[in-house]
Amino acid sequence: MIILMHMDATEQEVATVVERLRSFGADVSVTIDEGGRTVVNGSVESLLHDEAPWDSFPGVERVVPVVRGGRRVGRELESENTVVEVGPVSIGDGTLTVVAGPCAVESRDQLVETAELVAVAGAQILRGDAFKPRTSPYSFQGLGKAGLEILAEARSLTGLPFVAEVIDPRDVEMVASYADMVRIGTRNMSNHALLREVGRQSKPVMLKRGRAATVEEWIDAAEYVHSEGNPHVVLVERGVRGFDNSARNTLDITAVPVAKTLTHLPVMVDPSHASGRKDLVGALARAAVAVGADGVMVDVHPAPGRALVDGPQALLPAEFAQLMTELRAVADAVGLR
Amino acid sequence: MIILMHMDATEQEVATVVERLRSFGADVSVTIDEGGRTVVNGSVESLLHDEAPWDSFPGVERVVPVVRGGRRVGRELESENTVVEVGPVSIGDGTLTVVAGPCAVESRDQLVETAELVAVAGAQILRGDAFKPRTSPYSFQGLGKAGLEILAEARSLTGLPFVAEVIDPRDVEMVASYADMVRIGTRNMSNHALLREVGRQSKPVMLKRGRAATVEEWIDAAEYVHSEGNPHVVLVERGVRGFDNSARNTLDITAVPVAKTLTHLPVMVDPSHASGRKDLVGALARAAVAVGADGVMVDVHPAPGRALVDGPQALLPAEFAQLMTELRAVADAVGLR
Amino acid sequence: MIILMHMDATEQEVATVVERLRSFGADVSVTIDEGGRTVVNGSVESLLHDEAPWDSFPGVERVVPVVRGGRRVGRELESENTVVEVGPVSIGDGTLTVVAGPCAVESRDQLVETAELVAVAGAQILRGDAFKPRTSPYSFQGLGKAGLEILAEARSLTGLPFVAEVIDPRDVEMVASYADMVRIGTRNMSNHALLREVGRQSKPVMLKRGRAATVEEWIDAAEYVHSEGNPHVVLVERGVRGFDNSARNTLDITAVPVAKTLTHLPVMVDPSHASGRKDLVGALARAAVAVGADGVMVDVHPAPGRALVDGPQALLPAEFAQLMTELRAVADAVGLR
Amino acid sequence: MIILMHMDATEQEVATVVERLRSFGADVSVTIDEGGRTVVNGSVESLLHDEAPWDSFPGVERVVPVVRGGRRVGRELESENTVVEVGPVSIGDGTLTVVAGPCAVESRDQLVETAELVAVAGAQILRGDAFKPRTSPYSFQGLGKAGLEILAEARSLTGLPFVAEVIDPRDVEMVASYADMVRIGTRNMSNHALLREVGRQSKPVMLKRGRAATVEEWIDAAEYVHSEGNPHVVLVERGVRGFDNSARNTLDITAVPVAKTLTHLPVMVDPSHASGRKDLVGALARAAVAVGADGVMVDVHPAPGRALVDGPQALLPAEFAQLMTELRAVADAVGLR
Repeated sequence: MIILMHMDATEQEVATVVERLRSFGADVSVTIDEGGRTVVNGSVESLLHDEAPWDSFPGVERVVPVVRGGRRVGRELESENTVVEVGPVSIGDGTLTVVAGPCAVESRDQLVETAELVAVAGAQILRGDAFKPRTSPYSFQGLGKAGLEILAEARSLTGLPFVAEVIDPRDVEMVASYADMVRIGTRNMSNHALLREVGRQSKPVMLKRGRAATVEEWIDAAEYVHSEGNPHVVLVERGVRGFDNSARNTLDITAVPVAKTLTHLPVMVDPSHASGRKDLVGALARAAVAVGADGVMVDVHPAPGRALVDGPQALLPAEFAQLMTELRAVADAVGLR
Repeated sequence: MIILMHMDATEQEVATVVERLRSFGADVSVTIDEGGRTVVNGSVESLLHDEAPWDSFPGVERVVPVVRGGRRVGRELESENTVVEVGPVSIGDGTLTVVAGPCAVESRDQLVETAELVAVAGAQILRGDAFKPRTSPYSFQGLGKAGLEILAEARSLTGLPFVAEVIDPRDVEMVASYADMVRIGTRNMSNHALLREVGRQSKPVMLKRGRAATVEEWIDAAEYVHSEGNPHVVLVERGVRGFDNSARNTLDITAVPVAKTLTHLPVMVDPSHASGRKDLVGALARAAVAVGADGVMVDVHPAPGRALVDGPQALLPAEFAQLMTELRAVADAVGLR
Repeated sequence: MIILMHMDATEQEVATVVERLRSFGADVSVTIDEGGRTVVNGSVESLLHDEAPWDSFPGVERVVPVVRGGRRVGRELESENTVVEVGPVSIGDGTLTVVAGPCAVESRDQLVETAELVAVAGAQILRGDAFKPRTSPYSFQGLGKAGLEILAEARSLTGLPFVAEVIDPRDVEMVASYADMVRIGTRNMSNHALLREVGRQSKPVMLKRGRAATVEEWIDAAEYVHSEGNPHVVLVERGVRGFDNSARNTLDITAVPVAKTLTHLPVMVDPSHASGRKDLVGALARAAVAVGADGVMVDVHPAPGRALVDGPQALLPAEFAQLMTELRAVADAVGLR
Repeated sequence: MIILMHMDATEQEVATVVERLRSFGADVSVTIDEGGRTVVNGSVESLLHDEAPWDSFPGVERVVPVVRGGRRVGRELESENTVVEVGPVSIGDGTLTVVAGPCAVESRDQLVETAELVAVAGAQILRGDAFKPRTSPYSFQGLGKAGLEILAEARSLTGLPFVAEVIDPRDVEMVASYADMVRIGTRNMSNHALLREVGRQSKPVMLKRGRAATVEEWIDAAEYVHSEGNPHVVLVERGVRGFDNSARNTLDITAVPVAKTLTHLPVMVDPSHASGRKDLVGALARAAVAVGADGVMVDVHPAPGRALVDGPQALLPAEFAQLMTELRAVADAVGLR
């Protein structure tokens, strides 16, 4: 068991925790982590977890009751990179994965047309949402189950597996029965009921970063999924809230290598939602590949001007095909297959 | 029906929307709002809402299909302040409302002791959570239903109504069957499934601001609740994410008067979660009252050093009683009863 | 001498510093500060400062070569509050200080009229700038020396001392020869050449917080002034950069009590520049007094609609007089004279 | 002359400005810009600039008195990319420019050794500062003029031109007499006295973005330099202030393509100061090249553990040589020579 003390834990508080652990026969070591926080490591471990309310000791910030010490999604426990399988596609295996499609499923024609075009251009996974969390309750909220059926049809026509967002824990089973991968959106990164529910089923999970979440909090959200039994999680950086309104969000490109040092999970980037401007999508996608992301997810729409959601950020299929060529060149340059 | 155009909508896009509205016989006016955005007002209104996919016209940002035009929670539609009744307590009626109690219910003794002490000191509503959304899945997550039963017992002993957080849409009915007011926490402000669910029951709702939500987004979240039929919403500012780590969050005191100009709902402040430091709680609570908040919510714990959650920010009961005296003086100074 | 180690300093790095200090005969103690940082305290002190390049040891973040250990402006060295005298006015002595006037001096008539009105309403210090740092080089940049002469005339007519901004180290002597207090604006908080120059003259200095400075950095900027010999510094919180555009900046009201725990200098608030909206100025000024500020600085203009700079945030003289009444009530409530 | 109205300018305010312009015989057009702001374009132009206090009309935000309308550094006035010559090196001509060297000049040996190694590895410009703006007045502040002499010696030994920071307007002439390029640091981006002074001399200017400046404000700062007569400005993105402390700053990679759409100046990236962590420098430098930057500036130190300033972010010379190989591959992939 690892006990992380609060940054401002006193020596007395640390001593109390140490003494109590020792009273159970644990070998105890105390270190200061990189962030300056005191870390108490009790080697007898998880057996002790229920012996005392460790959480409630003064100065304790977090208790990690794992066998070897650390988060299951963390590098501490597992140095080898996780590869997540989405249908026939592997994410995180040293190849570049490209997910593409419209932000929302609007109609059979719109989706099938887009799916066929992105498949030809080289996308490996289709995106398209049937449930959309919108800022206003009066905006288009998605086609629901009918949208999932259209996605399934597009999959059988193109062979592309698809990822779809889920926003209600009561819909997880249903969405997962159609989709090859379920997605938790930025608004729900801290929706623990939903995180736990996707952790209880077996389809891989795409977890977008909350728009004001630290990298640590994002990884803690992934741990919620993993702790319920589902280790197939892919992280997606999609921009954080900043003070400059020239783009919709501030793409935190640094979060990619930072997350990869902290976790063994694959990390992707969504340049479309990060910028909200199609003229920036290509440059940001290239940067994502160059910085070391395992893949990118790009909005593509056959007629962005008529899109029901987020039209201004969607590429035309021809623009997407051009981008694929550029991304392959950058991927080669950085040693990604 | 009101149609808000995107900031960068072209004149042609505006003209297309106007023309289509007129084709349905609407009287149309076009104005530029304070933010520089074009607003198309079609006076025949909500009848038109289903006639065309207004959302999907190029340049359209949002469609508000209300009868008179505007959000139901907005000042546009209702200039008179809403008063929210929580058991025998009225919030927003020109008096100061103080909510107090521990962050989490830990045991019957802890809660009942605190409830009795804050009641004597003058708190009108008890707080205490049975479901806690924690950053790590391994932290204490609350006592669940047993916690709600303890809260109900404390209510019958003290006469104080209580507010409790709900984090799963499947628990709303159950939590609401115990609590006098349900709370949506900062992590769930954009959890639309949960917002809709609390909107479908009749207990009043306390809605905390997301830690990186704009005031507009916060009010849109309140509209989600109201749009399902529950108009009894109280907004709570609890600090936003900032760059200075001297306190846990940056209390956005300006949000109080800003929100009150945009909405007719009551607005309160939570200085405990905003700062995370008990030495700052008193000063921030006084500022909240002085700035015009309808009330404050304060963490109080009989033994903060042993608190399972957020001990460092909790006041001792005696400190809380002292704060009540200070707040009454400031409330008098600003004309709050 | 106090040596603050980097947050990620290794034990070996700490040991190296300690050993070297001991080699000079120092009594050395090592502690972990509240933020988790290792602090090495060598008691023989500043005599050692030039003996070794302490700055350059691995793991060292900062060296504070003072006699007793700590910043001169910090509470570590001086627990008693500093009172700053501006002409006949004392700031920080337990009374409320109000500074008022136009953002910029535009003409003799404009300034004298405003000065007379704010004096009647109870302001103790006049503001009005002759040098304005504007975002664009093509905006009005102030009247320069002629503006200072107008300010001096207003002083002799009203008896109010005045504070004026200085933006160029070469102008410090000249501005200080007219003004009773010189001001460093938010854009120049980290302009060390300017900070040092105002530290070399004797007029009191008003130091506004940089719009993205932490409280610690703000206090470090004050230390730049003090380290040159001028201890008469007043800090002014004026809003930081945030993500919500409903007001111009995010007033960080928490910074007031935080700064007052870290430094013995007086702390004031500028609600006008913080919000940029006159409808918010009153509420924020009341909050500032309630939170414990030593005073407020408010933009007042006889005809805001014609103001050359920042008209939208200026109060009319009658509105300012009304605000003074409100502030006196809040000041009474919080025990400020 | 172009007059930008405030976002909340009323129609009456716009009409007043238009009428006054027409009274001087101007052809006037009124448009709404992309941000939704009203722009009044008076075609007789700058001759009118002194005819009325345009700045002071209600609702006016900014007046741009240029001949054709727009900032001199803006794309509106000049669509062709500016190429800036630094000694024999061209920045912005479609090749990748790499600036490298230590953060600060510490000694002749340290600098000459580093310069020789980075020259061999392929850097084209040497960096190394003789004046360092430090957060604390007690930190190492640079060697001053002696440092510049060492830099000049390194230049003659290696053939590399050098860039050095200037922090005091009184030092500009002196620094420019040694350096091939002068640099304005992030703390001084809004130090107008300094910007004007570097604008009055002829050496090219490297302008780092302020840590909380919007892209628009950064470009306005460049306009300060240009407006004094010096058009040779290179912009450098170096990270902005964010809420996640895993790296020192949040590199705003999006700012590169955004700035390049708004201005014709070259744009570079400083991954060393952006991250403060040497393990992230390589990934961020690759991202910068992929996103379309004209070059990167990298801290290199022969013994980072002994560096007086910012050691934790400096690469060893061998690591820098490896990075050069990687950057050339990415540059090839994106069509940069």
